[in-house]
Amino acid sequence: MSYGKIFLNLKQTNLSNWLQYTQHEFLKQLSQDTLKKDCFFNYLKQDYLFLIQFSKAWSLAVLKSDNLDEMKISASTVNDLINFEMQLHIDLCEEYGISKTNLEGNDEKNENIAYTRYVLELGYSGDFLDLLSALAPCVLGYGEIGLNLKNFKPDNPMYKKWIETYASIEYQDVCKNVAQLIDNAFLLRLGKNYNDTYKWMQANKIFNKATLLEVDFWNMALK
Amino acid sequence: MSYGKIFLNLKQTNLSNWLQYTQHEFLKQLSQDTLKKDCFFNYLKQDYLFLIQFSKAWSLAVLKSDNLDEMKISASTVNDLINFEMQLHIDLCEEYGISKTNLEGNDEKNENIAYTRYVLELGYSGDFLDLLSALAPCVLGYGEIGLNLKNFKPDNPMYKKWIETYASIEYQDVCKNVAQLIDNAFLLRLGKNYNDTYKWMQANKIFNKATLLEVDFWNMALK
Amino acid sequence: MSYGKIFLNLKQTNLSNWLQYTQHEFLKQLSQDTLKKDCFFNYLKQDYLFLIQFSKAWSLAVLKSDNLDEMKISASTVNDLINFEMQLHIDLCEEYGISKTNLEGNDEKNENIAYTRYVLELGYSGDFLDLLSALAPCVLGYGEIGLNLKNFKPDNPMYKKWIETYASIEYQDVCKNVAQLIDNAFLLRLGKNYNDTYKWMQANKIFNKATLLEVDFWNMALK
Amino acid sequence: MSYGKIFLNLKQTNLSNWLQYTQHEFLKQLSQDTLKKDCFFNYLKQDYLFLIQFSKAWSLAVLKSDNLDEMKISASTVNDLINFEMQLHIDLCEEYGISKTNLEGNDEKNENIAYTRYVLELGYSGDFLDLLSALAPCVLGYGEIGLNLKNFKPDNPMYKKWIETYASIEYQDVCKNVAQLIDNAFLLRLGKNYNDTYKWMQANKIFNKATLLEVDFWNMALK
Repeated sequence: MSYGKIFLNLKQTNLSNWLQYTQHEFLKQLSQDTLKKDCFFNYLKQDYLFLIQFSKAWSLAVLKSDNLDEMKISASTVNDLINFEMQLHIDLCEEYGISKTNLEGNDEKNENIAYTRYVLELGYSGDFLDLLSALAPCVLGYGEIGLNLKNFKPDNPMYKKWIETYASIEYQDVCKNVAQLIDNAFLLRLGKNYNDTYKWMQANKIFNKATLLEVDFWNMALK
Repeated sequence: MSYGKIFLNLKQTNLSNWLQYTQHEFLKQLSQDTLKKDCFFNYLKQDYLFLIQFSKAWSLAVLKSDNLDEMKISASTVNDLINFEMQLHIDLCEEYGISKTNLEGNDEKNENIAYTRYVLELGYSGDFLDLLSALAPCVLGYGEIGLNLKNFKPDNPMYKKWIETYASIEYQDVCKNVAQLIDNAFLLRLGKNYNDTYKWMQANKIFNKATLLEVDFWNMALK
Repeated sequence: MSYGKIFLNLKQTNLSNWLQYTQHEFLKQLSQDTLKKDCFFNYLKQDYLFLIQFSKAWSLAVLKSDNLDEMKISASTVNDLINFEMQLHIDLCEEYGISKTNLEGNDEKNENIAYTRYVLELGYSGDFLDLLSALAPCVLGYGEIGLNLKNFKPDNPMYKKWIETYASIEYQDVCKNVAQLIDNAFLLRLGKNYNDTYKWMQANKIFNKATLLEVDFWNMALK
Repeated sequence: MSYGKIFLNLKQTNLSNWLQYTQHEFLKQLSQDTLKKDCFFNYLKQDYLFLIQFSKAWSLAVLKSDNLDEMKISASTVNDLINFEMQLHIDLCEEYGISKTNLEGNDEKNENIAYTRYVLELGYSGDFLDLLSALAPCVLGYGEIGLNLKNFKPDNPMYKKWIETYASIEYQDVCKNVAQLIDNAFLLRLGKNYNDTYKWMQANKIFNKATLLEVDFWNMALK
């Protein structure tokens, strides 16, 4: 598996936090079928509210794009998230007994607010690279988690399906496109000596912070 | 033809400017086959640059949405504009001998900057209603123009095709969806006595200004 | 004491959360001299980072203003926060043995991120009323706390000074100006039947959420 | 006179447009006392509306700042513009027979909209360097014009005063502070080989476009 060289570089520099996130207790329990159903439902409900804000953050990527290629990938990501993923999420929750009304009536937990507003505010205040650095941990982290857990087959069909979703060829393709977008965007703006620039230092700070906010999102679900 | 009651109301209040825009000399010449080819090419080139910024403005509509329905229509509009309309525009220009490189190499004229940045800045500074009031004249005005010119059949195939595009069922459907979005958004936020509110006064100012900036866009093309 | 009718109305509607915030354990301990020094230092360090983001949020108030009066108050608040308050904060911390370098080197805790980014993102995505509803709990809450604790005279000079700052005539004047700004802004935009509008419902949600994020900020300091 | 090395570099690269702006016919007429009073009044009225938007653009500089020093200069510039310059402008216009009500009742001309919204939108979409590149032509150009025209003493006291304002030590100090802010901001972010970066290319495009929009602003006043 490879999600591009920029991501690899960001991940390596912030590896211990990255592993905290991608090998979190929540995921261990999920893959080993020991996760409490309530924790998973907690997660699903917050994740619905998360997706709304996350789609908005991707809309900022359209605004911060410098060329048509960047706009195209960003726009189709926004559209996929809002017109397909969210519907899937709603359908899945329905199947598990959580109605759309229930989903919409929930209040965002503070850990959720911290993460989504951090990314969104950065999307407004920062540039395309700042925003991509904040979006990367979620998109590509879930891809990596999907592959990590691929061979686990928990009996609970909800957990099995969750793993399959992120291990699927469709989701892995999304990851490859986003990784390519990230590689191209960094090289275009910072050149091949990118890791010797002020922006690169900023990108690392942001990537690292977003990763820690992902850790806290799992913590929230386990509470 | 009807594009909803809010649009009708906005249009009636600003009717003389609206007619300046939708019955502009540029359109008379185009429909009567007397428009100089260079003016049309001017227009096509600036319109390509316009579409980039206009798609970005629609991305702000996703960010300013208050619910999933608003997000869905806004997101699919962004995606249609960027992943379909712009490609159509590029293909059409190619057919007329204007290469993609030529399109991208052009400089935005000041009239183009005035209009697009007015809408975009308002999308950032204002709320969903402000933004819709600025987007409406372009989307719905072109729909109305398409219908107005439907029965003109200029010999010049470029002009004929242009009219057909905006008179088409596909484009008229876009207009109906946007009109519905506008009606719902105003009623949700301002209630049925909407025309007795501060926001309504603002919406009219914005709609009127955007209409005048459209007039100037045609003027630019004729220069 | 009175900070205007809009604030009073917002506070009454969300009273139990409001009291959780303004009568928080942190404040009890501070006023009764039982607060651990480390907790207070925690607070001071995070508050420095908070002020940076809070000043940025007030800058958005300049951008979202609809007239010169609104711009004037917002601009002078930004300037006061950045060119005076922050210097005072730095000097005070210096006096307590926390250097400027120390202050700047600290990492924002997640509770701090949640609050500041919530307000900032709302400042970007929302309108003037949304932003004021998010700013009010901090500005006016501290004013109310200052008055509440006015007669407590903790021995610890740091705690005494903290209370005096927010009980001072200078700070109370800031509160009165902001309260007036809020009253005028709501009446201008929503009219005298403001509490019968969609925006008023939104304002209450935001005010309430910001209040809860303030509660979490105190919780963070006590950890 | 020297306004820092970044500005000098930007100016040299775009020199012919720069001279179109700083040696514009409007300025020749003003310095030689041949400018029609109506043209000057046109300018004053549009400049009032310009200042409102320009102050808002400087507020975005606070939001896009990366450190306290950048925030301080930006915040005091916002405050000076709104709480002092605009009052001066109002008082001056009053003296010339243009009431505050008259000033506020004017409609922004399209050339004014093009310039201010271009800068503001870029302040939202771009980063600190993009924004400074768009703000520089106005702030520093007026400084340079003030010095260029210093020895002209038109009989018309309005023209004489206008020149004196921008040639004054106070205004020249503003220019020096802004120039220093620009130099520091570019060096911090791009390093000493700044002119070999993608951002530098962008900065030049923006500086050049803003300069041309200034030219059009003078053209508007002469119409």
